[in-house]
Amino acid sequence: MASETSATTRTETDSMGAVEVASDRYWGAQTQRSLTNFDIGRETFVLTRPLIKAMGVLKKSAALANGELGELPGDIAQLIATAADEVISGELDSHFPLVVFQTGSGTQSNMNSNEVISNRAIELAGGEMGSKTPVHPNDHVNRGQSSNDTFPTAMHIAVVDELQRMYPRVLQLRDTLNAKAEEYAEVVMVGRTHLQDATPITLGQVISGWVAQIDFALDGIRYADSRARELAIGGTAVGTGLNAHPDFGPLTAKRISEEIGVEFRQADNLFAALGAHDALVLVSGALRVLADALMKIANDVRWYASGPRNGIGELIIPENEPGSSIMPGKVNPTQCEAMTMVATKVFGNDATVGFAGSQGNFQLNVFKPVMAWCVLESIQLLGDTCVSFDTNCAYGIEPNYERIRANLESNLMQVTALNRHIGYDKASKIAKNAHTKGLSLRESALELGYVTDEEFDAWVVPMDMTHPSAAEN
Amino acid sequence: MASETSATTRTETDSMGAVEVASDRYWGAQTQRSLTNFDIGRETFVLTRPLIKAMGVLKKSAALANGELGELPGDIAQLIATAADEVISGELDSHFPLVVFQTGSGTQSNMNSNEVISNRAIELAGGEMGSKTPVHPNDHVNRGQSSNDTFPTAMHIAVVDELQRMYPRVLQLRDTLNAKAEEYAEVVMVGRTHLQDATPITLGQVISGWVAQIDFALDGIRYADSRARELAIGGTAVGTGLNAHPDFGPLTAKRISEEIGVEFRQADNLFAALGAHDALVLVSGALRVLADALMKIANDVRWYASGPRNGIGELIIPENEPGSSIMPGKVNPTQCEAMTMVATKVFGNDATVGFAGSQGNFQLNVFKPVMAWCVLESIQLLGDTCVSFDTNCAYGIEPNYERIRANLESNLMQVTALNRHIGYDKASKIAKNAHTKGLSLRESALELGYVTDEEFDAWVVPMDMTHPSAAEN
Amino acid sequence: MASETSATTRTETDSMGAVEVASDRYWGAQTQRSLTNFDIGRETFVLTRPLIKAMGVLKKSAALANGELGELPGDIAQLIATAADEVISGELDSHFPLVVFQTGSGTQSNMNSNEVISNRAIELAGGEMGSKTPVHPNDHVNRGQSSNDTFPTAMHIAVVDELQRMYPRVLQLRDTLNAKAEEYAEVVMVGRTHLQDATPITLGQVISGWVAQIDFALDGIRYADSRARELAIGGTAVGTGLNAHPDFGPLTAKRISEEIGVEFRQADNLFAALGAHDALVLVSGALRVLADALMKIANDVRWYASGPRNGIGELIIPENEPGSSIMPGKVNPTQCEAMTMVATKVFGNDATVGFAGSQGNFQLNVFKPVMAWCVLESIQLLGDTCVSFDTNCAYGIEPNYERIRANLESNLMQVTALNRHIGYDKASKIAKNAHTKGLSLRESALELGYVTDEEFDAWVVPMDMTHPSAAEN
Amino acid sequence: MASETSATTRTETDSMGAVEVASDRYWGAQTQRSLTNFDIGRETFVLTRPLIKAMGVLKKSAALANGELGELPGDIAQLIATAADEVISGELDSHFPLVVFQTGSGTQSNMNSNEVISNRAIELAGGEMGSKTPVHPNDHVNRGQSSNDTFPTAMHIAVVDELQRMYPRVLQLRDTLNAKAEEYAEVVMVGRTHLQDATPITLGQVISGWVAQIDFALDGIRYADSRARELAIGGTAVGTGLNAHPDFGPLTAKRISEEIGVEFRQADNLFAALGAHDALVLVSGALRVLADALMKIANDVRWYASGPRNGIGELIIPENEPGSSIMPGKVNPTQCEAMTMVATKVFGNDATVGFAGSQGNFQLNVFKPVMAWCVLESIQLLGDTCVSFDTNCAYGIEPNYERIRANLESNLMQVTALNRHIGYDKASKIAKNAHTKGLSLRESALELGYVTDEEFDAWVVPMDMTHPSAAEN
Repeated sequence: MASETSATTRTETDSMGAVEVASDRYWGAQTQRSLTNFDIGRETFVLTRPLIKAMGVLKKSAALANGELGELPGDIAQLIATAADEVISGELDSHFPLVVFQTGSGTQSNMNSNEVISNRAIELAGGEMGSKTPVHPNDHVNRGQSSNDTFPTAMHIAVVDELQRMYPRVLQLRDTLNAKAEEYAEVVMVGRTHLQDATPITLGQVISGWVAQIDFALDGIRYADSRARELAIGGTAVGTGLNAHPDFGPLTAKRISEEIGVEFRQADNLFAALGAHDALVLVSGALRVLADALMKIANDVRWYASGPRNGIGELIIPENEPGSSIMPGKVNPTQCEAMTMVATKVFGNDATVGFAGSQGNFQLNVFKPVMAWCVLESIQLLGDTCVSFDTNCAYGIEPNYERIRANLESNLMQVTALNRHIGYDKASKIAKNAHTKGLSLRESALELGYVTDEEFDAWVVPMDMTHPSAAEN
Repeated sequence: MASETSATTRTETDSMGAVEVASDRYWGAQTQRSLTNFDIGRETFVLTRPLIKAMGVLKKSAALANGELGELPGDIAQLIATAADEVISGELDSHFPLVVFQTGSGTQSNMNSNEVISNRAIELAGGEMGSKTPVHPNDHVNRGQSSNDTFPTAMHIAVVDELQRMYPRVLQLRDTLNAKAEEYAEVVMVGRTHLQDATPITLGQVISGWVAQIDFALDGIRYADSRARELAIGGTAVGTGLNAHPDFGPLTAKRISEEIGVEFRQADNLFAALGAHDALVLVSGALRVLADALMKIANDVRWYASGPRNGIGELIIPENEPGSSIMPGKVNPTQCEAMTMVATKVFGNDATVGFAGSQGNFQLNVFKPVMAWCVLESIQLLGDTCVSFDTNCAYGIEPNYERIRANLESNLMQVTALNRHIGYDKASKIAKNAHTKGLSLRESALELGYVTDEEFDAWVVPMDMTHPSAAEN
Repeated sequence: MASETSATTRTETDSMGAVEVASDRYWGAQTQRSLTNFDIGRETFVLTRPLIKAMGVLKKSAALANGELGELPGDIAQLIATAADEVISGELDSHFPLVVFQTGSGTQSNMNSNEVISNRAIELAGGEMGSKTPVHPNDHVNRGQSSNDTFPTAMHIAVVDELQRMYPRVLQLRDTLNAKAEEYAEVVMVGRTHLQDATPITLGQVISGWVAQIDFALDGIRYADSRARELAIGGTAVGTGLNAHPDFGPLTAKRISEEIGVEFRQADNLFAALGAHDALVLVSGALRVLADALMKIANDVRWYASGPRNGIGELIIPENEPGSSIMPGKVNPTQCEAMTMVATKVFGNDATVGFAGSQGNFQLNVFKPVMAWCVLESIQLLGDTCVSFDTNCAYGIEPNYERIRANLESNLMQVTALNRHIGYDKASKIAKNAHTKGLSLRESALELGYVTDEEFDAWVVPMDMTHPSAAEN
Repeated sequence: MASETSATTRTETDSMGAVEVASDRYWGAQTQRSLTNFDIGRETFVLTRPLIKAMGVLKKSAALANGELGELPGDIAQLIATAADEVISGELDSHFPLVVFQTGSGTQSNMNSNEVISNRAIELAGGEMGSKTPVHPNDHVNRGQSSNDTFPTAMHIAVVDELQRMYPRVLQLRDTLNAKAEEYAEVVMVGRTHLQDATPITLGQVISGWVAQIDFALDGIRYADSRARELAIGGTAVGTGLNAHPDFGPLTAKRISEEIGVEFRQADNLFAALGAHDALVLVSGALRVLADALMKIANDVRWYASGPRNGIGELIIPENEPGSSIMPGKVNPTQCEAMTMVATKVFGNDATVGFAGSQGNFQLNVFKPVMAWCVLESIQLLGDTCVSFDTNCAYGIEPNYERIRANLESNLMQVTALNRHIGYDKASKIAKNAHTKGLSLRESALELGYVTDEEFDAWVVPMDMTHPSAAEN
């Protein structure tokens, strides 16, 4: 959030006239108007670092491209680049006070960038802030640009940049789980389907399923990421590129790629890039798959760890804090709870993004800031919860061997191994007989006379039931 | 957000052992553990004023009730109430640093309240912070309570309290619109259905529809509000009320009512009140109706104001800021855009709340903090956007009389007035003939010979078409 | 779905010209055009009984009202009423072949009604079908009406009517559960929060929470129902009531009330009633609360019934069918699964309704058929699943006494009863000591010397822990 | 829907005993039980062709694979394949009467397939239906399979198969639009952002944006499609492959590929393939992008076509049917309305799928049928609406040249072309002056003296504003 501004002011102007701005702020008239006109969700929704950085990267890249193309004098381009570097670094974050719920094109945030960079560049050049000389916010900083192409470009830069930051954080959890999958590859336990006892499985196999879900989700996110690297830049006001040099878009994309270290390119169709933000809808949908996967994983972990005495209790998870203000000694699966709450939040964000993404009209979708906010928030939360879950829970997951063994021993569904030998119908009778009379499977099988003791020994071997095998014909 | 903490520390303890806490913070060991263990969305999701205030109100009310019932010594109860008053006032907000994505019961925020109030009360009593003497966070501040009943109680208090703050903000917009509806009761304009020209309507009628939508939505919210006044307090750990005095719940609800100025009561069934938060799902669903209404209204306003020359252009809205960084002189319906973005955000929050609300198990729903966050955020945003829209747009809406008149004159759908006189089929022919040949309705009607000039004058009167009438038989 | 039509045809006309229609169908040109032009989802989405009945009720009521008001000759009104009665009864369902995905105003379904009733009335009068004499589809059957007010009126009639049919079906389940709650009021079992063992609760209390959730949801639905009884009728094309008699709307609402047996009334603001369908959004949101509740209940039942040997296993549910095609003897909580799937479907329908409800423009919302479909489908599914769950599962739920007792005995959280006597901190030590050493609570308490054997007996009594109590000071 | 069954019955048995089944139906005891036990949404939700065909394909492929691997005698395998071919062709559809809301694993539909194929194969072999000889539903038809791997395999087959059917239907619309984009490449018109007049654009460019959105959406769907080709087959009950030959999964996938003509393969991790259906969540999310795109396109078309006299009116669309039951001669953008309603339905289905996809537990997600239903329905509706929109609307879209020209002439935003020559600030003054005084741009520019008549002619050329250009330095 923007910190307090000073009491003294200077006069800034725009096409609507003069506005007073705090002397110690670089922003100009249009930012100030937005600050006054949009007091909506101010406590939570001030635009954050990723988007500010992206605006800085974009403005720097655009200035350099314009300089190369002869659209801006070299010294002006350089002044802009220098000021933009300060935006990139975060030094000027307190000069970006605007909220999400502003104009739907992000025009005011684009102008915020133009104004801050203009004034800071003027200051660097020894000029007078607010004079727009020698660096004009529109004619120079915004050269060859419109909010309509810069803001979606910044949205994509921020999203892609944050995704790169998210990947290792998700992979950290993935790798922990993968190591556990290998570590417990030989621990045979009861399988469960419909919440009911089923045929045996190894703990390693269970955890490998979680890993596979994360891998699958990441694949989808990476595909969406690749499509978010297509930028609107060069489209200017309505996608036609009016007032931009023909090479401006591609060249700016190249400079952006250098800044971020990831390959961006100009989108093939700039009308779609302004009028819709389907790439963000795609990213959001892909993030939802990860949320889905984490919901499943966190639920599995807490159900396996339920108890300690009156639940399933087959996994032990770290005890991080007292669990109850009234029940002494209680320990709860709190990291699972945080993770599943994150999942519901990502779902909600995704609903917003999908809805907003459908609401473009003609040459512009004016739900840009809220779409960017929601996607960036989901990325942040998913990364955070993976690290938190990894550090405070996953690393310490251990089998409760005693419980696993006891459950496995009483499990009736091992009867399934008999299907191939005596057929489904007889096997059913063994299981039902055991269930009704409270017998073990062996006892029931022998009582019914369908198998001998030796056959039972040979055919019902839990570890053998955890993989396919050819029928012994 | 919590401000920076000091470098010196004191030792705090809980059932898991000792933890170092910054000397200038009142919180204790469990808050500190949560701060360490849940670094998820910290930049955005630190619990805010409404919930902190609600926890203060609850703890004060509970202490007073326990005091009255002989469950707490009078001086202890008074110390708690005094410290809780500071929580209520906001003085201690920086001592509530926890985020939404913590344990799903809100236990850590309940303990945060217990710890802060305990330590502040100890300080007031001249004791040593962290000593839990003379005011113990669990045995005294949390007396007769569990996170499982206090946190949902605080959720409901916060939601109901914020709704009272929201109503006048929504009504401010509603009243502005209602005044406009009356002011423009006689301005006849083209009606539009399917985006196509339709029979006449007055601008006052149009706006009265918006007012009616807001009124309808508020009715639904007030109904949901009435159900959110049923509190979980008295249920303690699993809804049975273990360790609470039988009169504790009702009496605490009474004290809460006095603090907030709104009538609360203990819920009839405390098992449902802990295991589900259907009242919040209901509130969220009712808020969505308001979001739906605002989406419709904001869309109507911006479409009516589209142009200035190449759109519908029948309404003029205030020009608050330059609209484009590239297109000089452009003015945009920015308040409408902010409002529709808010609507999409409320939809997203509602999706989260509905999903989370379905995920309770046994005696507890552990999605409490995220549900509370989303509902409170929606309330805040809806109130904010109504005030912003009212102040910066609605108050200044004016008819573009010239455009309205010109459109009305060319409108073909006034042919509908002829149905009763010449039947639908002939009327159709008049309209089609006019459309095909580019005639006025009168010209077409006369050309086809279905009506005389005098009949046309008598029957096709736009203002007469804006209300029902008996057939002239 | 419409059954096959005959090979011979007759010519029907509308303002666009002539169309061939199967001789054995009553519909006319506009229905036939829609059939040709909208081949979307035909296998699933043909409009169903509730909406057809509602159109019949509306057309009959409108004709009677017009007759009374002198807007229609008495014999014409009577012919319409007679034909409409056949629509109401279901005899003519095969003459309503149109799908949801048609014009968004439902105009084509309104015309389908007008055409079928007109032709059937003509037939009754001995006239020639397609001649529009003596009963014209627009001038008579649609007299004083427009699709814009009739279709939403029919939507509300259908929704309210179906809700009346749903209530007893939901209550059937509610009452079964309520009887179980009373029957098992004395069965003490382990409580569970965060999926972890918690303090005792009775099975009756558990089930009473489910009943309370259903009751709460029904209350909300009834409130929404009361608001859906406000009808658009009398608004005609844009809400102004053009071409309708001033008393037509109220009088038609009265006749509708008589037909359905539920009190309807004309909406106060007809502009809102055409341009938005907030009452359906409200109903849908209220149905979602019921879906939320059923999700919770079904999940609880299947978790309590998980096992039979390796789960929680405290409830026994009816075995209705073999559970597995491969695992002999497996029984699954299939009714719970159907119910939770219904819940996810109701959530999806609700997302559609909320979205569609926000998309009105000017004087019309053109998402009427899809909104009606989704709300009606949710009502149907919720009623169906409640009956199915009641009949095939709930009625047969029984406690597994042995398991309940065994679990309760090993439960550590009964330590909570000691809080008031020895304080939370010492109680914590007893629980942790028991957990670590595998002791019973009593053993641990005695080992630590915090209580005597006699005190333990007096203080730790499961049944005493299932209700509040005053502290013994 | 299943047609009526005959009055005579035969006795079928399963592990729970005997059940009477209509003599003229091939299904067995378990299908019959499901029919009785799950009377939920029967009118709408009987499983449809794509899934029945997929079950047939799977059962045939599995039998062939088992035959090759020596797990089934050759004649048995062949009998199964022959009967399965009839399932594939649709001849036996009336023998698949089960609804979506059954067991969440689809076990009953898997058994329905096993039973029908078994009985039909028995019939072919001259045996007695219900005897399970010589072809047993479990031991033979279900050989090496479980519902837990077959049903999700069939889900994927059906979804992928239906996607192949959808692509050309969407491309039909895409290609029509693409041809229009080329045809109207030179038609310059007013651009619009924020619904306000903006700089010029060509109609070809506008439409190219729609094409690009469809292409983008299809890319995403194809990616998701590629991931849905990974099959669960070979996992049997819990993913371990118990009772299946090690080569059974891969070989069955190969046979399935041959049947469908699309490359399928066994999933790498079968635990994830049973416990989650993230591929369907991914597909659904990708379909939502298409829905988003179609919503934008349909909205643009209807707004451009709004009028005919009092709207924007720059496009003319085909008149397919009378638009109003009360307003004679009215024509509405009904195909747009159907398409946007489809979009909201796809959104709702997507909400269901995402929610259901998150709810797996342990080794199984039991929301399979509802997930399959929703994804298949979305595919069907999207394909249907594209064809309907193409045939009945898109093919006939034409520019209203007169209106386009008139609007372009009055457009003020062409002032943007002056930015590079006189700067943003002076250009703003020209636009504002024109707006205030009702001047043309040229008049205003000359009045203010910022440009000469010749400069205006040279610089403000609408067609030149529809592409980028280098500054003339």
